[in-house]
Amino acid sequence: MPSSAQQHERLSKTAGIGAFGLDALSSVAYGPDEILYVLLLAGTAGVAFDLPIAAGIALLLAIVVLSYRQTIHAYPNGGGSFTVASRNLGRTPGLVAAGSLMVDYLTTVAVSVSAGVAALIAFVPAINPYRVVIDVVAILLLMVINLRGVREAGAAFILPTYVFVLSLAALLLIAAFRIATGNPPHQLHTIPSATEGLSVFLVLRAFAGGCTAMTGVEAIANGVPAFEPPESQNAARTLTILACLLGALFLGVAVLGRSIGAVPTDQSNVIAQIGEATAPNSPLFYIVQISSAAILLLAANTSFNGFPRLAAVMSRDDYFPHQFSHRGLKLAYSNGIIVIGVLAIALVIVFGGNTHALIPLYAVGVFICFTLSQSGMVVHWLHSKEQRRHFKLAINAVGAVTTGAVAIIVASTKFLEGAWIVLLLVPLLALNFWAIHRHYAHARKQLASVPKRHRVGKQRVIVPIQDLNAASAAAVEYALSITTASRITAVHVRVDSDDPRDASLPERWKHWSPDVELRVITSPYRELISPVIAEIERCHREGDPTVTVVLPDILPRAWYQTVLHNQSELAFKLALLHHPGVVVTSVPFQLRE
Amino acid sequence: MPSSAQQHERLSKTAGIGAFGLDALSSVAYGPDEILYVLLLAGTAGVAFDLPIAAGIALLLAIVVLSYRQTIHAYPNGGGSFTVASRNLGRTPGLVAAGSLMVDYLTTVAVSVSAGVAALIAFVPAINPYRVVIDVVAILLLMVINLRGVREAGAAFILPTYVFVLSLAALLLIAAFRIATGNPPHQLHTIPSATEGLSVFLVLRAFAGGCTAMTGVEAIANGVPAFEPPESQNAARTLTILACLLGALFLGVAVLGRSIGAVPTDQSNVIAQIGEATAPNSPLFYIVQISSAAILLLAANTSFNGFPRLAAVMSRDDYFPHQFSHRGLKLAYSNGIIVIGVLAIALVIVFGGNTHALIPLYAVGVFICFTLSQSGMVVHWLHSKEQRRHFKLAINAVGAVTTGAVAIIVASTKFLEGAWIVLLLVPLLALNFWAIHRHYAHARKQLASVPKRHRVGKQRVIVPIQDLNAASAAAVEYALSITTASRITAVHVRVDSDDPRDASLPERWKHWSPDVELRVITSPYRELISPVIAEIERCHREGDPTVTVVLPDILPRAWYQTVLHNQSELAFKLALLHHPGVVVTSVPFQLRE
Repeated sequence: MPSSAQQHERLSKTAGIGAFGLDALSSVAYGPDEILYVLLLAGTAGVAFDLPIAAGIALLLAIVVLSYRQTIHAYPNGGGSFTVASRNLGRTPGLVAAGSLMVDYLTTVAVSVSAGVAALIAFVPAINPYRVVIDVVAILLLMVINLRGVREAGAAFILPTYVFVLSLAALLLIAAFRIATGNPPHQLHTIPSATEGLSVFLVLRAFAGGCTAMTGVEAIANGVPAFEPPESQNAARTLTILACLLGALFLGVAVLGRSIGAVPTDQSNVIAQIGEATAPNSPLFYIVQISSAAILLLAANTSFNGFPRLAAVMSRDDYFPHQFSHRGLKLAYSNGIIVIGVLAIALVIVFGGNTHALIPLYAVGVFICFTLSQSGMVVHWLHSKEQRRHFKLAINAVGAVTTGAVAIIVASTKFLEGAWIVLLLVPLLALNFWAIHRHYAHARKQLASVPKRHRVGKQRVIVPIQDLNAASAAAVEYALSITTASRITAVHVRVDSDDPRDASLPERWKHWSPDVELRVITSPYRELISPVIAEIERCHREGDPTVTVVLPDILPRAWYQTVLHNQSELAFKLALLHHPGVVVTSVPFQLRE
Repeated sequence: MPSSAQQHERLSKTAGIGAFGLDALSSVAYGPDEILYVLLLAGTAGVAFDLPIAAGIALLLAIVVLSYRQTIHAYPNGGGSFTVASRNLGRTPGLVAAGSLMVDYLTTVAVSVSAGVAALIAFVPAINPYRVVIDVVAILLLMVINLRGVREAGAAFILPTYVFVLSLAALLLIAAFRIATGNPPHQLHTIPSATEGLSVFLVLRAFAGGCTAMTGVEAIANGVPAFEPPESQNAARTLTILACLLGALFLGVAVLGRSIGAVPTDQSNVIAQIGEATAPNSPLFYIVQISSAAILLLAANTSFNGFPRLAAVMSRDDYFPHQFSHRGLKLAYSNGIIVIGVLAIALVIVFGGNTHALIPLYAVGVFICFTLSQSGMVVHWLHSKEQRRHFKLAINAVGAVTTGAVAIIVASTKFLEGAWIVLLLVPLLALNFWAIHRHYAHARKQLASVPKRHRVGKQRVIVPIQDLNAASAAAVEYALSITTASRITAVHVRVDSDDPRDASLPERWKHWSPDVELRVITSPYRELISPVIAEIERCHREGDPTVTVVLPDILPRAWYQTVLHNQSELAFKLALLHHPGVVVTSVPFQLRE
């Protein structure tokens, strides 16, 4: 696909929800549950806080989305929190934001795939022992889909998303209608008695649990350039649509879950219990369940779209290895997709595919990002001359303060359960980005000073040979094509005094190539390489700063036959790889059979 | 160490037992048990066959050892079954023998390490969950010891061997003395009632189990050249000493085990029960137990000595990759040691460190070898003119027939338990050896025809450059040292139309190097490599059979910084690696910081 065709890969609003919105939407399947899990510890008194907390999270969502809409318009080239924080707050906050976001992308893949597979296992318990294997296969599948390109990836995810949103909305409406007409769905559970006192800490923990529903909201801000033009406008509208869907579904699940007295368990979440109470065994119930399992699985796609873009932005600013934004090496950010896939597979294996163990790693990173991004926007408006900048500043200031408070709550209430890993990892990542940047700056400076062309003499060449055969002959012929015969030395290291071919070599050599010197060196210690290095150093002493070592390289027809050849050539290459003043050249000799 | 110093690494008879005899000796710790395990299924009626079977195995040992003494004298250069079978019976039997022996070396490492660790676990049950990890560490340790050289390896194993032999002999003598003086050790167990009828098959199975005691006897015949001169005589004497020790201890354990009514279990073997009955809680009891655990562990060393030697012999005959006998690349057969270590680690992991699961793989291979080797010796004497050749032929003929019969017994009674794996693997290995040989023969033929030297023109050189910087300048300077300016084309593939450095490049280039052509190719598909390949093919069409591609190679100071550079250079190298008529040369540019 030519560069000019990149536009055709752009996303419509509909496809944008599929590409960037699944992470946010799928959290409806566990966000309300995470609130209740904590509150139920304090029995009826605790559960009373369910709806206020849900309302608080919906409000928080509104604040964050209003803030991010402004970011999208102010930074149409994308980059999200990293760009905003580094441009306005300075390098360190920018790198911290980037590190947090990377951790968050990674945990998103691990959490959503393992949650999705867990939802599948609820249908087919027999596959439980193969949980980790299925997780890994699912991640590999997502990698392959994304390596094929953004557009197809978006398209593959639109259907399950809309099936989930529509079927869940239908379920919630039916339940609401029955309550309104005085025929409420029957309650399934009684609230268990309290095992813990109601405390501010408990309520905050519940709130922190519910905040996992917010992860993924920032993805669109990072991915603005992926949208159809006008990019900013389409991205902002997609974000608004996404937030409305998410907010409505989240509140709907929370309210109706409360009214049927849902008590989430390992086997059935709040959505499943609403379905059971409202439309048990109906097709609708199964559609909701299967599509929610599907979108949980596919939510990882958000990271597969977001991480490579973030990596590319950072790479262009020299904070990440250049291969993540490499000019010319494939359009689809393949390196980023592969890296996040492989790391997520490692994470899933380490945590044994256990969603509950992974969740505490989640959401800390994203709220650090939110805070840095909104704070950056506040500074942005301070320096801006735009109309209504004071109003916009106020919105972002509210966003910054709120998300900052939430970040502290999430980090402190989940510190021991795993948030500490993130709080340790993020500074390490930031430090690493900084070191990469410093390295590239140094390298750039050194590369920039191009020395004047100077006259260069003919190259000095050494050809280590084991015997005079077709392969070593080809190497010598090649040496003759790059320098004159008098500048070539063929070196034969003799380790085996009783080989008759060794004894006849000088004679055969003289006959074949009288003008190229053959130097025979006896090596009593059976050491092949150091005599050649001694030869090279002799050339250096004689005034040749660069010596070319030409090695024969036997190429068999089949790749697996390679192990049968070139073992000493490989040893030479490894030994000479970083030897100063040496250029190693392999001359291929193709075997016909 | 110089080649001439190889003799100083040779083994004395004492050290030879340590280096090659542990596998055989350690089998006293499980051979008698394996007989009883099967016989006890038929109760008292079965156990009555214990001593006859033990005597049969001792007789078999005598036959095999007499046969192998003749082999050692006839083939002083070692190679054992492979050499004997291939020289006398032809290639196929030789390769089958080699394959069997390799499988046997491998299973020896896995079985003896896991049995040794199991013996340790009997002392320290707490380490049981880490069984596989300890197995792996033990194998790695043996690898390291052997990589340091034969002599030290031999020395490290002499002490535990002699402690085991002497302490076990002392224990057996005390027990015998007490029986002789009418004060017999008290019996510990009663024989459980039969669960299976006595049958010929059962007796044969018991015999096959006992035959595991014979594994390792062939190791000395393979390793003759490792002994001090006179090699054959020392090797033959070591073999005799080993066989006498093994036979005496094996029979002693069997007879005294029977007289105290030993019933082996998972927790305590026959030796442990003799110790408990004769000298409970005495220092002698513990010395026997600990040294037997130690020599079981160390028995794997036999394979670490034997396998690399066999691999070297086969490699010299072109049946195994040449790096296993490579002239000049280290004395100590490092490649063979590493290969058997890694494979054994894999085997131990696959079988979860379970000795009982591994034992059926054991002993089949070695009896196939015995049979082929003895049959080969029979043919050897048929063609010999030596004195007493008819007597020697008779000994080897008895050996061949006996071991052949045992091979059939072992393979058939243990077929379903695992012997089938070996019977499948050995022909596959033999086939592979044959294919390697064929490949080397073809390669040798092609390499042997050295073409006449012909006049070669100056090399055609292409230098792909991203920008004019110090690294690409160094690459062009190098190109100028191997050919003239008019034969060099710098190729710049432009993928990013809005980079200002791209636009200024032709101007800067002209200023820096007016005599070297810069060709700018626009690549609308962001493809860096195919335009360069098109350039190469143009040169081929213009009559240059070989084109050199010179790439800049940025060398950072620290190895881990390498990932930050040279990504497109790497892509070039991979793409051009096997492209016909292309030589790829990297010109290093060293970063100072």
